[in-house]
Amino acid sequence: MSEENSSCCQPEASDVVSAYELIKDKVKHTPVHSSASVNALLGATLFFKCENFQKVGAFKYRGATHAVLKLNDEEARKGVATHSSGNHAAALALAAANRGIPAYIVMPENAPAIKKKAVAGYGGIITYCRSTQQDREETLRVVQQQTGATLIHPYNNINVICGQGTAALELLDEMPNLDVVIAPVGGGGLLSGTATFIKGQYPHVKVFGAEPINADDAFRSLRDGKIYPSLSPSTIADGLLTSLCPLTYSILRSKCDGIFTVSEKGIVNAMRLIWERMKLVVEPSSAVPVGVIAEHPEAFRGKRVGIIVSGGNADLDHLPWLDQSNG
Amino acid sequence: MSEENSSCCQPEASDVVSAYELIKDKVKHTPVHSSASVNALLGATLFFKCENFQKVGAFKYRGATHAVLKLNDEEARKGVATHSSGNHAAALALAAANRGIPAYIVMPENAPAIKKKAVAGYGGIITYCRSTQQDREETLRVVQQQTGATLIHPYNNINVICGQGTAALELLDEMPNLDVVIAPVGGGGLLSGTATFIKGQYPHVKVFGAEPINADDAFRSLRDGKIYPSLSPSTIADGLLTSLCPLTYSILRSKCDGIFTVSEKGIVNAMRLIWERMKLVVEPSSAVPVGVIAEHPEAFRGKRVGIIVSGGNADLDHLPWLDQSNG
Repeated sequence: MSEENSSCCQPEASDVVSAYELIKDKVKHTPVHSSASVNALLGATLFFKCENFQKVGAFKYRGATHAVLKLNDEEARKGVATHSSGNHAAALALAAANRGIPAYIVMPENAPAIKKKAVAGYGGIITYCRSTQQDREETLRVVQQQTGATLIHPYNNINVICGQGTAALELLDEMPNLDVVIAPVGGGGLLSGTATFIKGQYPHVKVFGAEPINADDAFRSLRDGKIYPSLSPSTIADGLLTSLCPLTYSILRSKCDGIFTVSEKGIVNAMRLIWERMKLVVEPSSAVPVGVIAEHPEAFRGKRVGIIVSGGNADLDHLPWLDQSNG
Repeated sequence: MSEENSSCCQPEASDVVSAYELIKDKVKHTPVHSSASVNALLGATLFFKCENFQKVGAFKYRGATHAVLKLNDEEARKGVATHSSGNHAAALALAAANRGIPAYIVMPENAPAIKKKAVAGYGGIITYCRSTQQDREETLRVVQQQTGATLIHPYNNINVICGQGTAALELLDEMPNLDVVIAPVGGGGLLSGTATFIKGQYPHVKVFGAEPINADDAFRSLRDGKIYPSLSPSTIADGLLTSLCPLTYSILRSKCDGIFTVSEKGIVNAMRLIWERMKLVVEPSSAVPVGVIAEHPEAFRGKRVGIIVSGGNADLDHLPWLDQSNG
């Protein structure tokens, strides 16, 4: 299926179940944590699905693994390709390595050394480009022409979305009596997979997105009925900088119950709360749902709330509460 | 039993089993984590028993809970007392609150505000003293005279030691095929409980202590056959500043297979490794066993090693790798 046509056909909950059958022996079944003191502070009962403990430290490994396993042998032989400097690149590199096929990753030259090292460490074949969107896409096109590799987009891809939805599948399997599930939203892959599974199998459970106010394009897109690009977003939640694509937009339009936004200060406070009270290293994007609950308490009071903790790849040299107090 | 006489009679593995029966519904059954990348780096297969997820964020809650539950009703009514500014004080306060009895905690006036707040938050009744050892003990004596409360020493107490040993019980129950178990050693309560259980029920499993070189009094005590006091220790592993007591010394003499030491740099590197690769917030003391493995690889290569992760109460405003690079 081409990326362009994929928006016409939405996945169903059964596709997430099928994805899980395919990947369940390859991904970590991550634990669900909770904290009495955090519950007392926030006035709701929270269940944290800890994808920070997933391989490569993020839920992205689920979608990448599923997309890689769905390739036929001929496609697989030529490998996979993407442009990314984040968790998706590392996830795709490891998923490809586990199938014994090449992963071609286009990264900007100025990407952090630690991210280059992570992708290379998982066996990814890196091609550097300049950091403009145009140069990334052009470089990726050249790489694909040379190799015949299949593009695995980080979220504009049904197989990726169905893989991401398996975190919610595991969560609801363990905790079926939830009132609400919240996931962070950037490009919308995680939230789309989550909503697809839950609205198909647990239609009474509300599904909300959580987004930084400073990158609220998904909130505005769903409110106004058209996709807004994410223009110069400025947030510490660096996993949520991207904007919706037609596929994720159409899924969220029909299956997401709404998007809540949260301030930067709210994200930092929530991140610190999770580290301090729950002893979990989570990246800023993962703190966005907790920040939402703290800033919109009336919507969650007394509810049983599942939270998809997206990942744990925080920069341990720049903790936001220290940067703030120093800055 | 008075604290003074307790060194004459060592607990047995069956006492740890009995302790577990008493406390198992009160404490968290903590998970065991592992990491392929950490294993590859260290050349051994490590299983982390995550007491950082225990209530109050540390294994200390096991021993405190056991000691509180072992009091008869008459003793319990008068409450419990200790002098401590660390995890034991918070653990005893919460354990007492859960039985509905008072906990009298003697703390130095200059203890960090966050620790005072934690103890008060769990319902502990704080009496402040000057920070000298003499003033702490004198103040505690006065508090006990006034209240009739039972002293619960953080490690010179068989009930506390048997409670601490229940972390090893859960670990071996889940992972019976270990070659070695390592626990950090300060006063020796955790290591004594660990060795008591393992040598009774899994005698083929080696039990080692892990200690900072800069606070190596337990290492020297076992080597030379006499208790050395911990004189002006200087280590970031602030849970390991205390020295052995006759009770823990006698248990470790007969049941611990040895103590390894690690440099301060090794502790910092190990702590960062656990945060970065395993996404676990652990306190410096908890990193000491991993530091030991990194600095003594020949002793652990190819082995299946259980590690008691003692706690997660790290100071998020002063991460040692940042303090070092700034300092």
